[in-house]
Amino acid sequence: MSNTKELDKKYILPTYARADVEFVSGSGARLVDVNDKKYIDFASGIGVVSVGHANKRVNDAITKQISQLTHTSNLYYITSQAEAAKKIVESSGYDMMCFFGNSGAEANEGAIKIARKFGEKDGEVKRYKVITLQNSFHGRTITTLKSTGQELMHNYFGPYPDGFVYANDIAQVESLLDNHTVAVMIELVQGEGGVEPLDKERIQALAKMLKEKNILLIVDEVQTGVYRTGEFLASNVYGIEPDIITLAKGLAGGVPIGVVMTSLKEVFSPGDHGSTFGGNFLSSRAACEVIDILDEYTKSGGLKEITEYFNHKLQEFCNSHKEVFTSKVGIGLMCGLRVRDGDTLAKIISNARDEGVIVLRAGRNTLRFLPPLTITKEEIDEGFISLNNAVTSL
Amino acid sequence: MSNTKELDKKYILPTYARADVEFVSGSGARLVDVNDKKYIDFASGIGVVSVGHANKRVNDAITKQISQLTHTSNLYYITSQAEAAKKIVESSGYDMMCFFGNSGAEANEGAIKIARKFGEKDGEVKRYKVITLQNSFHGRTITTLKSTGQELMHNYFGPYPDGFVYANDIAQVESLLDNHTVAVMIELVQGEGGVEPLDKERIQALAKMLKEKNILLIVDEVQTGVYRTGEFLASNVYGIEPDIITLAKGLAGGVPIGVVMTSLKEVFSPGDHGSTFGGNFLSSRAACEVIDILDEYTKSGGLKEITEYFNHKLQEFCNSHKEVFTSKVGIGLMCGLRVRDGDTLAKIISNARDEGVIVLRAGRNTLRFLPPLTITKEEIDEGFISLNNAVTSL
Ligand SMILES: Cc1ncc(COP(=O)(O)O)c(C=O)c1O
Ligand SMILES: Cc1ncc(COP(=O)(O)O)c(C=O)c1O
Repeated sequence: MSNTKELDKKYILPTYARADVEFVSGSGARLVDVNDKKYIDFASGIGVVSVGHANKRVNDAITKQISQLTHTSNLYYITSQAEAAKKIVESSGYDMMCFFGNSGAEANEGAIKIARKFGEKDGEVKRYKVITLQNSFHGRTITTLKSTGQELMHNYFGPYPDGFVYANDIAQVESLLDNHTVAVMIELVQGEGGVEPLDKERIQALAKMLKEKNILLIVDEVQTGVYRTGEFLASNVYGIEPDIITLAKGLAGGVPIGVVMTSLKEVFSPGDHGSTFGGNFLSSRAACEVIDILDEYTKSGGLKEITEYFNHKLQEFCNSHKEVFTSKVGIGLMCGLRVRDGDTLAKIISNARDEGVIVLRAGRNTLRFLPPLTITKEEIDEGFISLNNAVTSL
Repeated sequence: MSNTKELDKKYILPTYARADVEFVSGSGARLVDVNDKKYIDFASGIGVVSVGHANKRVNDAITKQISQLTHTSNLYYITSQAEAAKKIVESSGYDMMCFFGNSGAEANEGAIKIARKFGEKDGEVKRYKVITLQNSFHGRTITTLKSTGQELMHNYFGPYPDGFVYANDIAQVESLLDNHTVAVMIELVQGEGGVEPLDKERIQALAKMLKEKNILLIVDEVQTGVYRTGEFLASNVYGIEPDIITLAKGLAGGVPIGVVMTSLKEVFSPGDHGSTFGGNFLSSRAACEVIDILDEYTKSGGLKEITEYFNHKLQEFCNSHKEVFTSKVGIGLMCGLRVRDGDTLAKIISNARDEGVIVLRAGRNTLRFLPPLTITKEEIDEGFISLNNAVTSL
C-alpha cells in the first residue's frame, strides 16, 4: 500500500469509494500514476479539467496572478472578478449579472436564494416552491441535496427545508404548479442521473409556459456549461433564455469556483448573500483564461472538429460491441453509452483503468465520457484502443 | 471611474457594499492599489491571507503542483489531500478524520450533516436539533444561514430547515436541551458577531456537560483556526476536545478550501457526502505549505513574539484614544477595539484606508484586526502610524 493510501485510510472520512489509483502528473488528456503507468483521461476530473491537465496558458495566468495577489476580499473591488463576470455574461449572450461562490452546490444555493427572494412580494402570497426533476443532481449541501430529485438521498440529514417538489419528467411539471411555485430547476442534460439530454422542443415549450406564468426557469449548468455541450451554455444549444443559470466544474480549470448568473439584477441587495473566497483573484483569473482559451478554440472550429471526431469514434466503438452497449447518448463532449447489463459497468470501468483509459459511471447503466474539450485526435485514438481492449477482455 | 468599477457595476450582482478601492498587488502585509497608493493590511482578506500576500513558499508550492496536476477527482486517491489531512489532524492534537470542501459554509454543512446522521440511531428517537449562539455567523447557504444566530438574517430565503435553536449565551444552553438535541455549535471567539471571546471556564464546563449527555460539541473555527488565536486551533487554546471542528479562511493562503474534521470516524459511509473540487491537488497542496510555514513559525517563537508586539501596540493605541475606544478585545491576532460611538466606526475604517491602513468592522461597534500572522514589526509600526492619523483626523 502506498503511503497516500495509508494516510487516506487514516485521516480522510470514508465518503468516497476511491478507485485504486493515485495520479501524480498529467498533461493535456494524459495522466501518469504513482507507478509510472500512463492513461488517457476521458473523464477530466468529472468535467473539471476542460482545457486539459497542466494547461500552460492557465498555469501561467495563475502563476502571474498569485505573484501579485491571490485573495483580498469582496469588501473591495476585484479586477479579475469583474473581468470574469463580463466574459461569462458576454459568452452566454444573456443580459445577466453574476455572483461568485466556490462550487456547484454553492452556485445552486445562490440560485434558490434568488428565486425565493423573487417570490416574496409585498401583499402577495409568498412563492417558494421549486420543482426539480427525478434523477437530477444539484449538490451536497442540505438544501441542494433536498433539491436533488432522488428520494434515496433524502435520508439522515433532515429536517430538510420544505418547498421542493419532484416531477417525473418535463411533461409532468405543469400539473405540479400551484400558487406557491416560484421556479423550476433543471439540468438540460442530466449528468449524474445518467447522461440524459432532455428533449429540445419540450424544453422550449416549458420555458415559454413558465415565462407566461411568471415562474422562473433555473438551469443548472454546473456540468453542461462552459462549452461542454458545444456552445458556451447548453441553454444556448437549447435556444432558451433561463432566468437563472449556475456554473462550476469546467469554469476555472480546476480552481474551485461556482457562479450563479441571473437576469433578475435587482433581487439581491447588499448583505443578502456573500462568500469569503468567492470570485477572488485566483479563481476568477483562472476562469478568465479558461474562457479565453475555449472561446478561441470554439471560434477556430477546433471544438466542433474534435467533438465530431470523438463522437464518431464513440459511435464506432458502440457499434462494434453490440453485445455490451445498446446506444450512444449525449450532446457535445458530454456523452455516454448505455450498458446492456448494469452489473458489467463497474467491471468495464476498472478494466479500462487497467488498460490505461479513465472513464466514468453515470446513473445505473451508463458509461460516461467527459474528456478534456481540448483533447487531441491522437489521445482519442489511443483511448479507444485501450477501451476496446477493456471491453474485449470482459 | 476605473474600468473595474464599471464592469463590477454592470456584471456583478450587488450583494457587496464594496469600499472604493481596487488592490492590484501585495507582498507580506503590504498592498498596492490601482492608483499606486500603498497600504498596510491589518485585515488579510478577513483572515484568509494568514501567511501574507504573495507568499513565496506558498506560491512556489502552487506553481510546482499545478505544473503536475491541479485536479483529478475524489474518485481517485489525491496525494496532497491525504498529506494535508495528516498535517491538520496532527497539528490539532485530536484523533480525528477530515472531509474537504471549498468554503466555511460548506465545512459547516458537513458538520451539521455529521451531527444529524450521528443523531439517527435505530430504535431511538431521532436527534437533530443544533443549538447555536446569538450573534454567531456560520455561513450563507440556506442551512448555515439558519444556523446563524441572527434573526434579522432569516428572511426571504425560506422555508428554512427546522431544528436550529438559539441560546442567548453559554449559560442558557443547558436549559434549551431536549431529547431531540444532537449538537451545540459555537465559535470560541465570535468573529462577525464582534470579536467576542467566550469565557474559557464556561466553555470547559459546557464541553464537560455535553460529553456527559452524549450531545456533540461542534466548534466553528473557520475564522479562529489555523493559528489565528495563537495555537493551531482555538479549541487548543481553550483546552477542550470538540467532536467536530470546521476550518476554512486561513488554511490555504487564499485558495478556496473548507474542512470538517471529526472524531466520529464511522458516521459517514461512501455516498453520504461529497464535493467535486474539495481537497483537490491545488487547494490541499496550498494547505500543506501554509501549515508547514505556520508550524515552523510557531515553533520558532515568531508567532508569539509578533502577537505580543501587535497586541502591545494595539493596547497603546487604544489607551491614547480613550475618547474613541473603550477597550481592547480578542485573542492572539484576532483582535478588536470597542468603539464608544458605533456611528464613528465606518468613518474610522474609511479614514484609515485614506491614511493607508486596512481595518475591518465586526458587529455593531468593533474595529476588527486580522493581520497576516507573519506581519513584521516594521509593517505593524507603519500601520499604527497611519491608524493614529486616521483617528486623530476624525
Ligand atoms: C449538475 C450538477 N449540479 C451540481 C453539482 C454539485 O457540484 P459541486 O460538487 O461542485 O458542489 C454537480 C456535481 O456533480 C452537478 O453535476
Ligand atoms: C465563523 C465563520 N463561519 C463560517 C463562515 C463562512 O465562511 P465562507 O464565507 O467561507 O463560506 C465565516 C465567514 O466569515 C465565519 O467567520
